[in-house]
Amino acid sequence: MTDPDTREFVQSFARGLAVIRVFDAAHPELTLSEVAARAGMTRAAARRFLHTLEALGYVRQIGRGFSLTPRVLELGFSYLSALSLPEIAQPHLEHLSRRVDESVSAAVLDGSDIVYIARVPTRRIMSVGITIGTRFPAHATSMGRVLLAALPAEERDAALAAPLTSPATGAPVDAGSLAAALDRAAADGYAVVDGELEAGVRSVAAPIRGRGGRVIAAMNVSTSTTRVTLERLRGGIVPALLETAAAIEGELRHL
Amino acid sequence: MTDPDTREFVQSFARGLAVIRVFDAAHPELTLSEVAARAGMTRAAARRFLHTLEALGYVRQIGRGFSLTPRVLELGFSYLSALSLPEIAQPHLEHLSRRVDESVSAAVLDGSDIVYIARVPTRRIMSVGITIGTRFPAHATSMGRVLLAALPAEERDAALAAPLTSPATGAPVDAGSLAAALDRAAADGYAVVDGELEAGVRSVAAPIRGRGGRVIAAMNVSTSTTRVTLERLRGGIVPALLETAAAIEGELRHL
Repeated sequence: MTDPDTREFVQSFARGLAVIRVFDAAHPELTLSEVAARAGMTRAAARRFLHTLEALGYVRQIGRGFSLTPRVLELGFSYLSALSLPEIAQPHLEHLSRRVDESVSAAVLDGSDIVYIARVPTRRIMSVGITIGTRFPAHATSMGRVLLAALPAEERDAALAAPLTSPATGAPVDAGSLAAALDRAAADGYAVVDGELEAGVRSVAAPIRGRGGRVIAAMNVSTSTTRVTLERLRGGIVPALLETAAAIEGELRHL
Repeated sequence: MTDPDTREFVQSFARGLAVIRVFDAAHPELTLSEVAARAGMTRAAARRFLHTLEALGYVRQIGRGFSLTPRVLELGFSYLSALSLPEIAQPHLEHLSRRVDESVSAAVLDGSDIVYIARVPTRRIMSVGITIGTRFPAHATSMGRVLLAALPAEERDAALAAPLTSPATGAPVDAGSLAAALDRAAADGYAVVDGELEAGVRSVAAPIRGRGGRVIAAMNVSTSTTRVTLERLRGGIVPALLETAAAIEGELRHL
């Protein structure tokens, strides 16, 4: 008898999705052989998936090179459009960004990562470009900390079960210090992270609550340790951040 | 013998992608029966695709309801990240938006549609929310017109081959007037569209050229007919728009 889990898993669908994901900033255009190698499949299999994607308008071929088309965005944006939060939040993030003259973002929790769902950049602070869909380990980010702090204890433990290391230093994260930071975030209603994701980056985040009162996302203001002191962050930016989160929550309640 | 086109087409992959696309703003959470009905497949088939998506982390099930997870963004953002243009353009769009205090966007051409790849909104002008991935008929938009104007004659004809109607009025589009508008856009280096996509919306777009000199995208400033006169548009906004497009092109040349 076939194992039910295997029977229910459509291998060819999973492999096709993997073909989409072999394209990235370093590999915007790939030959058939390169797609096959990166996706770990035969050239014959890669050809079938690429032709299927081309027939559906998700891939185009010019000469020997295959690349994704903008239609692929519709897949990712099925999620964003279903979420409705980004559309509501975006003008508020924009307004806050103008007010404090810093980059402002929103993210949701996915397992032990945060995922950006909206972003208003003012200048490049991070060495890594952040776009919608970018993931970071939740524990090392201000948005991740307010999101983790809002979880029931069992879910928080599950999200932090794997050994954690600091992205900035590579050092192991002390579980006790992290738990204390999360408790402080829960008590304060916001979280400050200073260089833990990347040296020199200072950010502060607040939770965004949905209609039922549950935390559904977080938003942050991200700046550099050289430009904004902790005093300015707490005195000037935190009140503006909390006001903006409240304005978004107000709109969500009237949906 | 099997038809080669059919043999090369992975039906189960295409049907799986269709399952992702049944979720949208009006249907963020669906039961198994609803997914099956909207995707036009049996419940058994829908169950297999949903379980595959769940195993890969793209779908979550709570009770009887299935919904997409933020991981789906990674599919769409394979494209954005491969494009590199949005990351380069975003700070420039942001700067222009602050300077003219209006919404600024960038889009690429996909067949006869434009698709938004970056956006800095200031206020809601359009009745339809615009996010990255939103599509509009190219002929009715300022960005579409500069993109169509840059195409070789045969490609332009192909993109405009189907009978076109005005989204704002539903009236058929006169091919001669549209051709004249495209010629004007090519000569001027920008295109103004006034209420043709939606009554009351006035926008102006300029092309963005890649390293080889080919037009690869367009950017626009979108405002309302009541707030910005045509004189202000041409005298104040167009120079700022062209300057921003040139700044983006300068950065693209140094990639």
